[in-house]
Amino acid sequence: MPSCRFDVLGLGNAIVDVISTADDDFLLAQGLRKGAMTLIDEARADALYAAMRPSTLVSGGSAANTIIGAASLGCRAAFIGKLRSDEAGAAFVHDIRAAKVSFSTALAEDGPATARCLVLVTPDAQRTMSTYLGASQNLSEADVDEDMVRQSAIVYLEGYLWDPPAAKAAFAKAAKIARGAGRRVALTLSDSFCVDRYRDEFLGLMRSGAVEILFSNEGELHSLYQTADFDTAIAQLRAENVLGIVTRSERGSLVVAKEETFAVPAFPVEQLVDTTGAGDLFAAGFLAGLTRNKPFEDCGRLGAIAAAEVIQHIGARPLADLRQLAAQNGIAI
Amino acid sequence: MPSCRFDVLGLGNAIVDVISTADDDFLLAQGLRKGAMTLIDEARADALYAAMRPSTLVSGGSAANTIIGAASLGCRAAFIGKLRSDEAGAAFVHDIRAAKVSFSTALAEDGPATARCLVLVTPDAQRTMSTYLGASQNLSEADVDEDMVRQSAIVYLEGYLWDPPAAKAAFAKAAKIARGAGRRVALTLSDSFCVDRYRDEFLGLMRSGAVEILFSNEGELHSLYQTADFDTAIAQLRAENVLGIVTRSERGSLVVAKEETFAVPAFPVEQLVDTTGAGDLFAAGFLAGLTRNKPFEDCGRLGAIAAAEVIQHIGARPLADLRQLAAQNGIAI
Repeated sequence: MPSCRFDVLGLGNAIVDVISTADDDFLLAQGLRKGAMTLIDEARADALYAAMRPSTLVSGGSAANTIIGAASLGCRAAFIGKLRSDEAGAAFVHDIRAAKVSFSTALAEDGPATARCLVLVTPDAQRTMSTYLGASQNLSEADVDEDMVRQSAIVYLEGYLWDPPAAKAAFAKAAKIARGAGRRVALTLSDSFCVDRYRDEFLGLMRSGAVEILFSNEGELHSLYQTADFDTAIAQLRAENVLGIVTRSERGSLVVAKEETFAVPAFPVEQLVDTTGAGDLFAAGFLAGLTRNKPFEDCGRLGAIAAAEVIQHIGARPLADLRQLAAQNGIAI
Repeated sequence: MPSCRFDVLGLGNAIVDVISTADDDFLLAQGLRKGAMTLIDEARADALYAAMRPSTLVSGGSAANTIIGAASLGCRAAFIGKLRSDEAGAAFVHDIRAAKVSFSTALAEDGPATARCLVLVTPDAQRTMSTYLGASQNLSEADVDEDMVRQSAIVYLEGYLWDPPAAKAAFAKAAKIARGAGRRVALTLSDSFCVDRYRDEFLGLMRSGAVEILFSNEGELHSLYQTADFDTAIAQLRAENVLGIVTRSERGSLVVAKEETFAVPAFPVEQLVDTTGAGDLFAAGFLAGLTRNKPFEDCGRLGAIAAAEVIQHIGARPLADLRQLAAQNGIAI
């Protein structure tokens, strides 16, 4: 197999996060489902924003966060996602390129604004997200740079991409090209309600061999297999014949690989501030380890280190140099 | 004197901060003066932004930060400053109103974009600022709501307002109305290079009685009196017959009031992250104390508490409820 130009390519909704603090009463008053990601339209986004406390704007998007994290761990990384040519779009492009991620998806000159995710962080550091997909809905097959996909060792796709119909086609195209070129395709389940919306399709992706690496948290896994029993869910995951990675917050993660299971502890955290991006950054560390052919335990440790960094500050993208942080913790990458 | 609708009204440049980390080499390569605020034009702002790391957007502006802090301490607060009706302008308006600050300055429909301050935070938590004044340059006398000024117990003005020529006229108008209505006028010297640009005018403001409360840090005070000797500078400040407040970072602050001087220690800080807004928030605490007729030591302690909060996270606006924080530290306000 020829060597690749990129270690990892992400496809996802290109989103700017608008983050503010909130208390549980506010979530209740706004009818928001704590901990979940809910899709909203522009009018609802405007109304919710108007009711929110002063906020911080940071580039986000689940797969984009993962790709940024992988780049911070030294991966050659690329991203495909749709923005509008507005101020938020320009900030997103600045941030992803400044993180040394290759990005060349054309910005929409008209149509809906760049996507916003209104993130409410409660005092328990839990995050509740309301997303207006805006321009990111218009990601289409035409945006999938075939050469870029072929040149990427791992193509990473977010389950959230299933929400905008055109994006699903882009997702399928990228997965097909990647498989044709002998590349690995990874999927993150994104959110338990997202799994509820697309359960059969996500299962189909694994069973058809389109996806061979699956990232999930406990809630998503329970939703995928519609069971409240963790061991049952793990047994079903093992039967899929994929590499399954299940994150369990402070209880660490499980790597389910064929007959073997590896348990990796969480990385210690001094002060939990904002859990936004925890799963995204775990995936970043794990994928970075995979591209360097690290043992699964080390991949999990890299994920734990990256996740621990991002939950100790506001925003879903790392502020520290993750490669340095990994080295300080005994993993050269 | 009739009671006031507002405890404190701020006039200042209305700015959105674009914050990223940088090392000293980057400042050197970009020819930036560490710790200072440098004015830049739009082309330079674009070039510097392109070279910066991924960034966070937070509403800023020196006097605006102070007013937000005062509101967080329970003051009835208002702000006057000029924005453009663009995305950054809309975010600034959202944030200031969400902080319960009264704001009604008309947004410019055309002309330069909303002001940006490119803030580079070095590993020592020092901040270096490059400001494109944009729309804030067009603050004019017409924007000064006379009734709002008359109805404010303290009118707080930032020295930075001296940079845009039209804003200086707005500043003078506000100061005159306030004095005419028997209100107190406070000035912050903003930056030692700003003092260097307008030394005689700032001295004139005190000596003519236009300003009766002066906020300054050590560097600004040395620049004001062109002396390297702190005691000499303090003696000269005392001779101005104003209430002088001098902040000295980790060495706390001095309140110079007629024949008396009060030294107030700094508030302990667990982790210094980003010093942006330290002076602004000190002023917020001090002014809040003044409006509640607290003894000067308590005003200084309130300033120290507010400053300590803001330097322990990214961004120049408080994330915590400062009134609660003050109460937890024994000052009911």
